[in-house]
Amino acid sequence: MGRIFIGIDLGGTNTKIGLFNSELELICKTSIATKEEMGPADVVGRIGDTIEKLLTKNNLTIDAVDALGIGSPGPLSVGEGLIIAPPNLPRFRNTPLRDMVSNRFGKPAVLDNDANVACLGEYILGAGKGSGNMVFYTLGTGIGGGIISNGQLLHGSADNAAEIGHSIVYPNGRECGCGQKGCLEAYASATSMVKRTLEAIEAGGQSSLRELFEKQGEISCKDIYEHSAAGDELARKITDETAEALAISCVNMLHITEPTKMVFAGGVIAAGDMLLNRIRHFFNEYIWSLKKETVQICFATLGEDAGIIGAAALAREAI
Amino acid sequence: MGRIFIGIDLGGTNTKIGLFNSELELICKTSIATKEEMGPADVVGRIGDTIEKLLTKNNLTIDAVDALGIGSPGPLSVGEGLIIAPPNLPRFRNTPLRDMVSNRFGKPAVLDNDANVACLGEYILGAGKGSGNMVFYTLGTGIGGGIISNGQLLHGSADNAAEIGHSIVYPNGRECGCGQKGCLEAYASATSMVKRTLEAIEAGGQSSLRELFEKQGEISCKDIYEHSAAGDELARKITDETAEALAISCVNMLHITEPTKMVFAGGVIAAGDMLLNRIRHFFNEYIWSLKKETVQICFATLGEDAGIIGAAALAREAI
Repeated sequence: MGRIFIGIDLGGTNTKIGLFNSELELICKTSIATKEEMGPADVVGRIGDTIEKLLTKNNLTIDAVDALGIGSPGPLSVGEGLIIAPPNLPRFRNTPLRDMVSNRFGKPAVLDNDANVACLGEYILGAGKGSGNMVFYTLGTGIGGGIISNGQLLHGSADNAAEIGHSIVYPNGRECGCGQKGCLEAYASATSMVKRTLEAIEAGGQSSLRELFEKQGEISCKDIYEHSAAGDELARKITDETAEALAISCVNMLHITEPTKMVFAGGVIAAGDMLLNRIRHFFNEYIWSLKKETVQICFATLGEDAGIIGAAALAREAI
Repeated sequence: MGRIFIGIDLGGTNTKIGLFNSELELICKTSIATKEEMGPADVVGRIGDTIEKLLTKNNLTIDAVDALGIGSPGPLSVGEGLIIAPPNLPRFRNTPLRDMVSNRFGKPAVLDNDANVACLGEYILGAGKGSGNMVFYTLGTGIGGGIISNGQLLHGSADNAAEIGHSIVYPNGRECGCGQKGCLEAYASATSMVKRTLEAIEAGGQSSLRELFEKQGEISCKDIYEHSAAGDELARKITDETAEALAISCVNMLHITEPTKMVFAGGVIAAGDMLLNRIRHFFNEYIWSLKKETVQICFATLGEDAGIIGAAALAREAI
């Protein structure tokens, strides 16, 4: 029997769990409601019970497991295995999640933030495979980031590196939830795209999205891309501003960490080639002429599984 | 007899050479004219002769030397020990400098770019000592950069990482020599400060620097800081724009690599506290409110010796 690694992707709403062999091939996976309101002890209990069921179902026992990896919303301390103050897991403040999971099974466990773990997954088995140096963006409600430098996740002095969403793209630009102005997140997250669109409509902008908003009472990032594709000018302006902000960030990240791949993940990439082609277009417009750059700008390929794969990879690396 | 490491800091005009013991304590140093026009073979010959004289003067022979480190203008390949196309060393295109130096003495040699080497020097023995994670800026004719992540220089996929001077601070801002617009270098290098000042004077701006320029036919970065200190408003505007651009870059670098120290070196830091205090002021203005940041923004402490110390450190690390 080969060694087994378990990947846990803890989210505010759902938690995904996967069993992997030593080649990081998926044996089986499942998703359960996190039930954050029950508090850390019960949440870890539910995760533990689920893992045991998955093992049993595959005629395995906990003895086959070498280690467990956990991806969790941050901020957190990798060294201490501690979740510090996650906005969407309010009951997990200062929770020693790594040791709680480790103690449940008497097996080593390792903790890292969710964007880093997904980045590692894409690096090892997904779009970043073989790159050695990679930059990873998750475009969702906010913007998360991960940096692989010389084959290793870059953590910084207190595990807060790769907060690429809060690098300033437009000084004194739009206000960001973090208290800064002009952050990438204020232009390219799904939330900010919707916000910018509604502001433009409210300011009297002509758009086919206006009618939709009046009918639905809300619009989504998906709506904006659909209307942009259908030729709506205001929607097109919004999607282009998003691509332009991302491209400026790509230029800066190229000069700072020099990856061979820039990988985009998260809900916003459902926009498809329409997004990717415009990021590449603006990247070529902004990048220097000093030398020809060959960095690949592409989408993540592992989808929802990046987190559990990365968490299992983290477990495998840790032992 | 302890082990000896030799640090070589190759520059367009002068080359500095230092002998160090295994604690990286300086035994002796010298500076010679590079004489780039003689070509690589003769330049390496002169460097070799100088090293032999230094050794003899200290009753040492080449047998005492463990390794040699070389800092050189880039772009270059660390892995191949190759200088590729340095703008201020035109005859050194595609020169295998590392092996030429190594072969001269039959000792291991290692090559890295000058900003990285100075960064390593400051990290090991200077302002960045004990930091583990550091960002380094050299503010001179251009802006060079170095990044220490988890105790290691960050090189990127082809040794072009840490080109912080070409991160875009103001999209569609001032033209930079690299072909981009709005680079940090276009606002905060000594050259760009002079250029911005002359443009402002030419555009009719009132300034005590106008008379100086008319008398001297030129002005320097030092003049601008002196007139700023003396109360000249235009000079003050220029020095503040410089500090503001640097501060925005510091905010971004904090979020991207999370250093505990940001260290500034190069000719421009002669401006002293006037520069440092304004960078800190703007940093506090631009940084998020999400958590309190304690990163130290400070000046390099090794001066001209950072290059030879870093090169010797590189040699010590390599063996």
